[in-house]
Amino acid sequence: MTRTPKLFVPAITPFAADLSPDAARFVVNCKTLLADGADGLAPFGTTSEANSMSVAERMAMLDVLIDAGIGPKRLIPGTGCAALPDTIALTRHAVRHGCLGALVLPPFYYKGVPEAGLVDSFSAVIDAVADSGLRIYLYHIPQMTGVPITLTLIEALLHKHPGVFVGLKDSSGNWDNTKATIEAFPELEIYSASEALIPQNVAAGGAGCISASANVNARNIVGLMRALGTPDEATVAAGVTEVRKIFEGLPLIPAIKAATARRHGDASYARVRPPFVALSDAHDDRISRVAELAFSTESA
Amino acid sequence: MTRTPKLFVPAITPFAADLSPDAARFVVNCKTLLADGADGLAPFGTTSEANSMSVAERMAMLDVLIDAGIGPKRLIPGTGCAALPDTIALTRHAVRHGCLGALVLPPFYYKGVPEAGLVDSFSAVIDAVADSGLRIYLYHIPQMTGVPITLTLIEALLHKHPGVFVGLKDSSGNWDNTKATIEAFPELEIYSASEALIPQNVAAGGAGCISASANVNARNIVGLMRALGTPDEATVAAGVTEVRKIFEGLPLIPAIKAATARRHGDASYARVRPPFVALSDAHDDRISRVAELAFSTESA
Repeated sequence: MTRTPKLFVPAITPFAADLSPDAARFVVNCKTLLADGADGLAPFGTTSEANSMSVAERMAMLDVLIDAGIGPKRLIPGTGCAALPDTIALTRHAVRHGCLGALVLPPFYYKGVPEAGLVDSFSAVIDAVADSGLRIYLYHIPQMTGVPITLTLIEALLHKHPGVFVGLKDSSGNWDNTKATIEAFPELEIYSASEALIPQNVAAGGAGCISASANVNARNIVGLMRALGTPDEATVAAGVTEVRKIFEGLPLIPAIKAATARRHGDASYARVRPPFVALSDAHDDRISRVAELAFSTESA
Repeated sequence: MTRTPKLFVPAITPFAADLSPDAARFVVNCKTLLADGADGLAPFGTTSEANSMSVAERMAMLDVLIDAGIGPKRLIPGTGCAALPDTIALTRHAVRHGCLGALVLPPFYYKGVPEAGLVDSFSAVIDAVADSGLRIYLYHIPQMTGVPITLTLIEALLHKHPGVFVGLKDSSGNWDNTKATIEAFPELEIYSASEALIPQNVAAGGAGCISASANVNARNIVGLMRALGTPDEATVAAGVTEVRKIFEGLPLIPAIKAATARRHGDASYARVRPPFVALSDAHDDRISRVAELAFSTESA
């Protein structure tokens, strides 16, 4: 089965000078990303520094997006935390807002836990939320969590909770794993975390991409999705690659935020929370090049 | 310098049938551990499943201990979370209670972050807590966090915040690292996470031990500390080792909780939160052997 690919942007979270979440800039940037042509947003993921934010902050920022008129069916907020009650609280909040789904990390502090314990963890969330509208996208990012979402875990979850699990974001960067997941679970929407994998992802029956660099390159990525299979594909793909390669070797989240700041002409967007450090000015040339390639047609 | 070694127990957190923290059993067990002769408790650490608990739950359980009459100067609660505001809230709460110190994990979701960002993170906590009574014990457990507390990080923190950092718990299990830390920072209290390392730790100038198995073997461990350098040392050490070896190959936290349940004759203590799974009855013989070696003199 080939699906019409979708792009969800794991939107960055701007911070004010006191490092509190900056609601106004968050709304401005999220609306910009949707105007770029993204199908929706996956806020409060890894790129969003959500794991550096409290439950209350994450809830407040989701409220802000919805209050600003962004439709909940365009939102897949990240809701997975180390602590079970936190995951329950955030997932319940997302469901009550009518969000398209929740992107849920496994509990990620303890390593080497049994698969049955991970099933118990998701079951505890599902039972506590107790809402037939709950739709979960699994979030596989073992390089951060150390707790992989394996094929056998997915199988156990689908078996135990039919209809609840609807997709997976594979941030492992391991195409073989993505391909195996698509093949094993054709009913799930499987997103790659890099736009570099869009052609393979779509050809294999995947759902598209939820990529950090979509924060600064959404228009080109959407363009690539539309150009798949057309004579333009190679040219558009080359343009996407050119932007992506600029970020190689840079700390990704600080660099994405620096580029976002350049786009808006507003240095505030470049602020990060510890443990990240804002991108050094030494990389200004690279950020200028991103702006030239990705934002140059804009009236700044 | 040789110090009089101390034992702080990373007390388990009992859970009720609905998986909420069980305050009454928590107090009973913590008082039992102090009666065993432990110098104090390091609650809300890894063994305590604290990383599966919300900030509100952790605060409430610390309140409960202090309300029950356990002196705050015998407590080093764990307060480090993935999210900066959570670490600030818990650390502030511990300081306001007058706790001996706070055992602080580095922010542990994001991997490969720069040392300067980790310094910024601790600085943000110290600045936000803004209390001259704050004393931080660093918590090095890279097998869970993926974020080591390196010697250069410690040096940067001591330099920037003189008097705030007073110790470190080395849960790496790597004696060479512990030894290097003691040698580089003789002013810090360096705790090993296994009682197996007590003789080396004390001989090198370390501060003692904060060990998971102290939950079920505190009396023998205290006995070992007192026997160091005496003719009894080898015999006492062998007894401590015998108990510790029973846990080899078992999931440690569920096994520790199963042994605690046996001690109190109360199966409730064996409950764990996901992602852990309670110990299988198949290991009853091993738990019985722990009880025989560690609790047999008790009037149950």
